[in-house]
Amino acid sequence: MRHALRVGLIVAFVAGYGLYVRADEGMWPLNRFPSAALKQRYGFAPTPQWLEQIQLGSVRFAGGCSGSFVSPSGLVMTNYHCVVSCVSALSDEKRNFQQSGFYATTAADERRCPGMELNQLTAMTDVTERVAAATKGTEGERFRAARTAAFATIERECATSDDLRCEVVTLYRGGKYDLYKYRRFQDVRLVFAPEFDTGFFGGDPDNFMFPRYNLDLSFVRAYDGGSPLKPTQWLRWSPNGAAAGDLVFVTGHPGTTSRLYTVAQLEFERDVRLPIHLMFYSELRGLLTEFRRRGAEEARVADAELVFVENSLKVLRGEFSALADRSLLERKRTDEAALRRELAGSRFQQRFGGAWNAVAAAAERRRTGWPRFAAFSRLTGSELFAQAQTLVRLSAEQAKPNEQRLREFSEAALPAVRQRIEASKPYSNELETVVLAHILTHIREQLGLDDPATKALLGSRSPDEVAASAISGTKLRDASARVALMKGGASAIAESTDPLIVLARAVDQYAREARRVLEDEIDSVVDRNAELIAQALFALRGDRVYPDATFTLRVTYGTVKGWTEGGREVTPFTTLQGLYNRHTGSAPFNLPARWLERKAHVALDTPFNLVADTDIIGGNSGSPMIDREGRIVGLIFDGNIHSLGGEFWFDASKNRAIAVDSRGIREALRSVYQADRVLAEIDGH
Amino acid sequence: MRHALRVGLIVAFVAGYGLYVRADEGMWPLNRFPSAALKQRYGFAPTPQWLEQIQLGSVRFAGGCSGSFVSPSGLVMTNYHCVVSCVSALSDEKRNFQQSGFYATTAADERRCPGMELNQLTAMTDVTERVAAATKGTEGERFRAARTAAFATIERECATSDDLRCEVVTLYRGGKYDLYKYRRFQDVRLVFAPEFDTGFFGGDPDNFMFPRYNLDLSFVRAYDGGSPLKPTQWLRWSPNGAAAGDLVFVTGHPGTTSRLYTVAQLEFERDVRLPIHLMFYSELRGLLTEFRRRGAEEARVADAELVFVENSLKVLRGEFSALADRSLLERKRTDEAALRRELAGSRFQQRFGGAWNAVAAAAERRRTGWPRFAAFSRLTGSELFAQAQTLVRLSAEQAKPNEQRLREFSEAALPAVRQRIEASKPYSNELETVVLAHILTHIREQLGLDDPATKALLGSRSPDEVAASAISGTKLRDASARVALMKGGASAIAESTDPLIVLARAVDQYAREARRVLEDEIDSVVDRNAELIAQALFALRGDRVYPDATFTLRVTYGTVKGWTEGGREVTPFTTLQGLYNRHTGSAPFNLPARWLERKAHVALDTPFNLVADTDIIGGNSGSPMIDREGRIVGLIFDGNIHSLGGEFWFDASKNRAIAVDSRGIREALRSVYQADRVLAEIDGH
Repeated sequence: MRHALRVGLIVAFVAGYGLYVRADEGMWPLNRFPSAALKQRYGFAPTPQWLEQIQLGSVRFAGGCSGSFVSPSGLVMTNYHCVVSCVSALSDEKRNFQQSGFYATTAADERRCPGMELNQLTAMTDVTERVAAATKGTEGERFRAARTAAFATIERECATSDDLRCEVVTLYRGGKYDLYKYRRFQDVRLVFAPEFDTGFFGGDPDNFMFPRYNLDLSFVRAYDGGSPLKPTQWLRWSPNGAAAGDLVFVTGHPGTTSRLYTVAQLEFERDVRLPIHLMFYSELRGLLTEFRRRGAEEARVADAELVFVENSLKVLRGEFSALADRSLLERKRTDEAALRRELAGSRFQQRFGGAWNAVAAAAERRRTGWPRFAAFSRLTGSELFAQAQTLVRLSAEQAKPNEQRLREFSEAALPAVRQRIEASKPYSNELETVVLAHILTHIREQLGLDDPATKALLGSRSPDEVAASAISGTKLRDASARVALMKGGASAIAESTDPLIVLARAVDQYAREARRVLEDEIDSVVDRNAELIAQALFALRGDRVYPDATFTLRVTYGTVKGWTEGGREVTPFTTLQGLYNRHTGSAPFNLPARWLERKAHVALDTPFNLVADTDIIGGNSGSPMIDREGRIVGLIFDGNIHSLGGEFWFDASKNRAIAVDSRGIREALRSVYQADRVLAEIDGH
Repeated sequence: MRHALRVGLIVAFVAGYGLYVRADEGMWPLNRFPSAALKQRYGFAPTPQWLEQIQLGSVRFAGGCSGSFVSPSGLVMTNYHCVVSCVSALSDEKRNFQQSGFYATTAADERRCPGMELNQLTAMTDVTERVAAATKGTEGERFRAARTAAFATIERECATSDDLRCEVVTLYRGGKYDLYKYRRFQDVRLVFAPEFDTGFFGGDPDNFMFPRYNLDLSFVRAYDGGSPLKPTQWLRWSPNGAAAGDLVFVTGHPGTTSRLYTVAQLEFERDVRLPIHLMFYSELRGLLTEFRRRGAEEARVADAELVFVENSLKVLRGEFSALADRSLLERKRTDEAALRRELAGSRFQQRFGGAWNAVAAAAERRRTGWPRFAAFSRLTGSELFAQAQTLVRLSAEQAKPNEQRLREFSEAALPAVRQRIEASKPYSNELETVVLAHILTHIREQLGLDDPATKALLGSRSPDEVAASAISGTKLRDASARVALMKGGASAIAESTDPLIVLARAVDQYAREARRVLEDEIDSVVDRNAELIAQALFALRGDRVYPDATFTLRVTYGTVKGWTEGGREVTPFTTLQGLYNRHTGSAPFNLPARWLERKAHVALDTPFNLVADTDIIGGNSGSPMIDREGRIVGLIFDGNIHSLGGEFWFDASKNRAIAVDSRGIREALRSVYQADRVLAEIDGH
């Protein structure tokens, strides 16, 4: 499952390096698409109209997914796992849509997903020179402050209404800055979702595996002024799907890659960041697994969370394994040494030569600076605490000039902040208590018992006691209480006795200071020097490079094909027959009754899942896979196990993206779900 | 807490290298004690009588702890955490000794600990030449088979009665083989244990920390023929305890160290073994934490297990951190390169020079061989499954000649095997189900869904379903059922329909094969070549070396002293006043009511815990700390956080052992517990 979940985890530390391209590797911004290379290799180059249709037909889920418009009435196709938290929020003890699936047979039955936001990219503008002018002559903390201020100013100028989202995107780690302008849709309604058992068929054991049999599909609809949106562009369905060897494209929003990290940065990942994450999420997995056993209702409220935790764990394990492979890291070491030798023999040595050692020194300081910062960042893993922190910080940040604020509270970002505060959704007190207690325990371990921040959070109580009393005592689960605090501003926050607000206030100075140390004293050095490394690469190796992923719209291309695993050929397609063969009756290999009852109506030889060597990463979940006519042939939902090393390098021989075949989608909608309304709409009837 | 818990984890891969000694470093076998060096440094050398008293006054807990005889009536002092599973086994819903503590006010109240075994070392014999003759000219698999056969033969000759335990110990990885002969005591009864909240005061947050305030103390008694044992040697109490700067000794059974692993072996630990363990135990910690919340009874049955899991995690984290410290590993790399350069310039290069590359090649193959082996080894983490596996393997191994058996079923080892089968103790079905489901899930992840071993264990069911039906259906919780199967032999095992026996039978061929591949094809190469490295070290650097820890009796010496932490002096003693100061009322800083009620009677300035720079490791838990007169001044129960790197190297400036002060023990027994019977006995009244 390729989902840029937990924006704090997966999308947080955007790299933005440039990459030298081999094979079909590369996640290309639309305004830097390598049409000439594609033409040379495949005899096909997209027209401007083709690219425009892709751009406007694609959507980003602000929570970390991709999707596409698939009808003139604003119907959006994405993955089941991209809407599972909406399905969960719309369910309760009586109506469990996770179990039954969801299908709106009439427009009136479509139900709004709390807090869901879609973004459609409408413009890209190069602002590199403006940012360069603002940061000229600065270093370290001053560089970072100047750049943040420039971003805030540029974004505010652009965001002239709450319907717009404007973001300055750092490409090639500062080699380029582009302003991305999005149209925001905040009224998003659920149209169709299969059962949890179908959407996650194969569960954690089959996640990142292939052959695969997973209907990881859903449809939502964007509304505008209370009516279905009428988008100017949308994607049509391919009548025949794709065949092995066909050229295909994937359009979507890959979250982050780190492909030109220096060796010192990769060692930091292996030695510090990944092990800490692995332990944190492994323990959380244990907590949630056992929490589910309390009863059916607990299982229901924890299911979606557990799926994401297990997905994160598999990603992190895959990344760790890639870095723990001595031959792979050795290759990276050799590449880096070669680049530095080449540089040393060139006229650029003076300008760029010192950058690697500067990055290495900063990476060394990151070994102590990052764990403290990360410990505080965990707190937003409690959704209710996250609300409290947002309220506390919003009141403080709003009092500052726009260009001095924390980046996520800049003027242009405020509409989305307010929407999160205002959105009504259910919270499970029991689950929130378990999660918050886990986070507080983790902080105590990372910081130590006698750290002032630990004392501020816990006093003389245990993490369990603090979590239980804060969650049971807070009023923040009610949107009206949050909105009242938001409207009350700084004085309301200062006077609040809500225990979660009290907790968020107590820890804020320590969390801010840890962030300041990391960002201003450490990462600012990395940023400036990583920019030099990218410039050295441009200078020595030309401009056929793509920037690392930045959760912005990219297109990647490749062909439908399998790979060789342990000497055995893995063929690129599975069929619906294979799905029935893998059904055992035990979760996560349990087909819902509907599938068994309708089996006689299903064309079992229909292609169901497929793989291609397109270069994707977390965040591409829900991306359409299209052919050269721009027609949908599949729906990306995962990568194979070798794709996890794609965080650091692209292995063309084994890295594969996994999609639901467009024919399998249609067949399931027709024969199993009888979802005629959706079918008619995507067929243009 | 320094406990060689989970023999499968901590004591499993014994290293046995020789070490070149600096400072007071070293865990010395009694027959290799460096009296001359001690004399030179401290003006004191132990007499043969002194060493004999230490040897016979020390005991080993077969489950992985140390202790000492402290009275002529067989009273044994050890840690609370070394008997916590006994306290748990003697408790039930009505009488919860974890909560109340345990104190036998009369001899008749002393209660037998199920399955507990004490060993007293009575003789050590050098059998190096015999083993060398048996293995001469062999390599790889044949070397390993020949050596295992030689061990079995030597041990059987020695173990002439069930009251004896005989083990050939591999020192300096084969540089020396010594036969250790122990007297076994299987009737061990609980005399005194404090409350869980006192024995684990500070819990996981304070574990491996100092300053410290922990009464990690208990007393048991060895019985012989139904009456208290009359040992020929025991340790007396020091009247005044130790002062800062005093020379002290620790005698006990350190489990394992890896101080002369090659760099390739250390990288294997960092990249493969430790991360897999960290994830497994982190998840188990989450499961147990949440399992405890089901209710008071669940908390009671899971407490002891959770403590050990958290302790393991802290040890593993400390070890990982040591290896992830680039400067420490770099120093190791430099040392290794220096040794190899020195060797290359000597006449020994031809004989030993190739050993490092051979070890590195084997370490590389271990990266795939070990995880498969380790996955199967997890199964014995379920105590009931462990019983099933023992029964299945016992019936198969007994049919073979002694010298061809798995080492743990050799003739000399059978009395202990039988005792484990026969010992009655309670099992929690609920806890066993949670643990077994976790292990089965882990195996499925490590091996993959479609591996034949996974299929043999799970069929088409889920790990939860298999665990629940196997645990609820098994009769193995009754000792009588186990004994019947043991007596029934191979045919009874083959015909059994007990679901745990069925499960153990189903997986056995795969588990054995994974072990064979690891031991015969990989580790045999490491063993032969590590022996060469040890011999190279002897040849180049003389014989003032100590072998790595092997869970055999060792003496280490040093002085009572603190250390410097972040520029601040840590003084070596705490007091009982400090304990009261750290009490908050919230677990794990919650003093039982008895302590609060008796506070007025307590001499608050009594020293309570102390540190010394003696070189210890897991397995030393319960070791007496003694002065030069051989009198008890403390009771080892832990090391500081820097001691965790002691697995790989000894950092004399920061590595400290933590003990309960003998004066603090006496004061607590007198003023709080009024345990006059114990006090009178250790005072010789």
